[in-house]
Amino acid sequence: MSGSTRRSFIQGGAAATAALSGGFPAVLRGSDDRMVRLGFIGVGGRGTHLLKLALARKDTQVNAVCDLRAEAANRAAALVRDSGRNDPGVYAGEDDDFRKLLAREDLDAVVVATPWRWHTPMSVAAMKAGKAVAVEVPAAVTLQECWDLVNTSEATKKPCMMLENVCYRRDVMAALKMVRDGLFGELIHCQCGYQHDLRHVKFNPGAKFGPGSKGEANWRTQHSIQRNGDVYPTHGAGPMANCLDIDRGNRFVTLTSTATKARGLHEYVVRQGGADHPNAKIQWALGDVVTSVIKCARGETLLVSHDTNLPRPYSLNFRVQGTGGIWMSDNKSIYIEDLSPESHRWEPFEKYQKEHDHPLWKRFGEEAAGSGHGGMDFFVVNGFVEALKRGLPTPIDVYESASWSAIGPLSERSIARGSAPVFFPDFTRGQWVVSEPTFGLDDQF
Amino acid sequence: MSGSTRRSFIQGGAAATAALSGGFPAVLRGSDDRMVRLGFIGVGGRGTHLLKLALARKDTQVNAVCDLRAEAANRAAALVRDSGRNDPGVYAGEDDDFRKLLAREDLDAVVVATPWRWHTPMSVAAMKAGKAVAVEVPAAVTLQECWDLVNTSEATKKPCMMLENVCYRRDVMAALKMVRDGLFGELIHCQCGYQHDLRHVKFNPGAKFGPGSKGEANWRTQHSIQRNGDVYPTHGAGPMANCLDIDRGNRFVTLTSTATKARGLHEYVVRQGGADHPNAKIQWALGDVVTSVIKCARGETLLVSHDTNLPRPYSLNFRVQGTGGIWMSDNKSIYIEDLSPESHRWEPFEKYQKEHDHPLWKRFGEEAAGSGHGGMDFFVVNGFVEALKRGLPTPIDVYESASWSAIGPLSERSIARGSAPVFFPDFTRGQWVVSEPTFGLDDQF
Repeated sequence: MSGSTRRSFIQGGAAATAALSGGFPAVLRGSDDRMVRLGFIGVGGRGTHLLKLALARKDTQVNAVCDLRAEAANRAAALVRDSGRNDPGVYAGEDDDFRKLLAREDLDAVVVATPWRWHTPMSVAAMKAGKAVAVEVPAAVTLQECWDLVNTSEATKKPCMMLENVCYRRDVMAALKMVRDGLFGELIHCQCGYQHDLRHVKFNPGAKFGPGSKGEANWRTQHSIQRNGDVYPTHGAGPMANCLDIDRGNRFVTLTSTATKARGLHEYVVRQGGADHPNAKIQWALGDVVTSVIKCARGETLLVSHDTNLPRPYSLNFRVQGTGGIWMSDNKSIYIEDLSPESHRWEPFEKYQKEHDHPLWKRFGEEAAGSGHGGMDFFVVNGFVEALKRGLPTPIDVYESASWSAIGPLSERSIARGSAPVFFPDFTRGQWVVSEPTFGLDDQF
Repeated sequence: MSGSTRRSFIQGGAAATAALSGGFPAVLRGSDDRMVRLGFIGVGGRGTHLLKLALARKDTQVNAVCDLRAEAANRAAALVRDSGRNDPGVYAGEDDDFRKLLAREDLDAVVVATPWRWHTPMSVAAMKAGKAVAVEVPAAVTLQECWDLVNTSEATKKPCMMLENVCYRRDVMAALKMVRDGLFGELIHCQCGYQHDLRHVKFNPGAKFGPGSKGEANWRTQHSIQRNGDVYPTHGAGPMANCLDIDRGNRFVTLTSTATKARGLHEYVVRQGGADHPNAKIQWALGDVVTSVIKCARGETLLVSHDTNLPRPYSLNFRVQGTGGIWMSDNKSIYIEDLSPESHRWEPFEKYQKEHDHPLWKRFGEEAAGSGHGGMDFFVVNGFVEALKRGLPTPIDVYESASWSAIGPLSERSIARGSAPVFFPDFTRGQWVVSEPTFGLDDQF
């Protein structure tokens, strides 16, 4: 909770934290040349967006881009050229092309924005090739992959940061600041979820998915056929994990998960393509609503929802509740016992968000505006790049990336066992007891 | 779902339903003398309120009242006299006085509004004494009590209705009507909960509870010392069970429950009475937030929250979600795919509530106004009395009373087993497969 962690890390005074965090060398190459040399693996919709954010900075070079599809890689290369930078190396066409990119010696780090099943293999290969990694969410799909990330980061001393942009959402950061300032008292219960009608993403166009379809329908939909669990937990769990000091004085201990029947995707196929559409025969594994409850070491609970197959407005379902009060994002309201003027009565959160605006947003809010997803994307790229430049731990580290991603496979396991409780691995190997929070302590990154 | 159930029941055509529902004789005694003769056991705050509602009707006699405290019983008797009715028998002073009331032959039914631990023993004794029973929530505290209610009702052919008033909340009944009219499509997930800061109820005055304290602090608080579970599930679960056709074509199958640490009550004691207050030494069993997830036979999930120890605005946390849309009470909003004008955008629920106002509310809304809890209380008393008069099943039957109340002890069991899934008894003994919904089918009661 204190602001001392980063300072003592800088001063080399916190051996345990340094060991846990890798003790990464800064990529500073003289005060006038603080450039981070990046490669991009996966420059589809999301990867291209991240590339643009990197190109908008003065402290990045982009020396290589890679995508299975040559047109995507070439389009990305053109963006790099158009930014006034040197022509990047282009790798395209083969599954293994990313390894050629990783073999380059002029890269400090890579950004991985590929389909989920490639996140961990590419991140592991990148760290082994001496590169720092920024990887899209979820960082891993299986528990073994979570361990692969942790083991590789520890062995190579290379950082691996999951790009969980929602950690930087303005309301979430204000709530985090309020948690740390004690307004909620002792935290008791949090909620979150990915509640996003993705039917038009899973099928595009019409009732089509898989090869020949558009965007994420190419690959994402297949997960709904084969997996029943919270396959996309981190947008909710990451921000709440920060509030709960997960892996930094607290940890996720057990999880139960329960899935509903699967109806939404079938109905959508029939709606879009008729009852005779070949996709109307598919048996979908993914329950339309998956509800997971996590118990934490300090005794808090975290409720995590996954809800992507039904018609509904978007909501990440945030709730932060302690002995002093409660915030909910769905009604944009807050109640703080010692501050709210009327007993038992919600107040609009807006006033609190302004008053407790996080220092990062105060400093970078204007710059972030328009960067995508309400400014969050600026911060997550900024966090990765600034950490590398300074040789500091990335704002989200490999343990957090693993713990948050692990909710996916653990929920599958619990559901397969009839909602039996399952145990979280302790990816920190006990270091969570002494680790302290580092995310969002100040206005640096 | 069809309106045929009550009709066919009246016509004696539905043997299975009749068997399940008891086939109670009407208390009609000629068309001009349709009086239900009531006794009241427990006339504290809640019992007195129910008594007043009964006295406001023209079709009730109140022939006996009972309370441990003589002043409460006498005050109730005065209310009966003041209503122009005959002086009722008064039973007060001893734990066993209620048995003297039950021995009277001039009672068709009793209303039980005592502390929770008396609900089932008194209801069972009443049915054995030939009386129909209306019992406050929860009807039972243990699984054995749930069975006791069911077994006794079946053996005596006397109805036992839990007075779950929230089933009649106007928004909830509109949502139920919309469910039945198909606006939500196939139901997938529901949520509910009892989220009510009861600290001022559990301690009254100051940090005091138990003998010598005021109101429910006399007895209710003790449950927070000895039980860890959802001790008060029915205000949420009842209305959602109606939407989900529980015990009428569907049933609760398994439940997992997870409790947070217990902090709120201790902090409140310290706040009210100082750190040296004797009650500050108490170890509270009840986790401040208890989250239960129920899986239904048809594949839906029901999330049930219990949250009574922390500062927070009141909310029953309703959510009804299907393949066609979603309603949430916390933001008073709804989204129906084929009706809402903007894709992925909430609409205020108000318009829908008016448009789908339940026939019962259309008919009795004015009469119900001011009856307490937004009019719900009128309906729950009306439902019991009208069912008795007509010899029809009560709108909430003994199986529903048991199934909804069972969430309490089942959640205690799951929590005690580290959130392991536990199985719901099938109190209907298989009749749920053929039973049809009867609650709120028309404007009768």
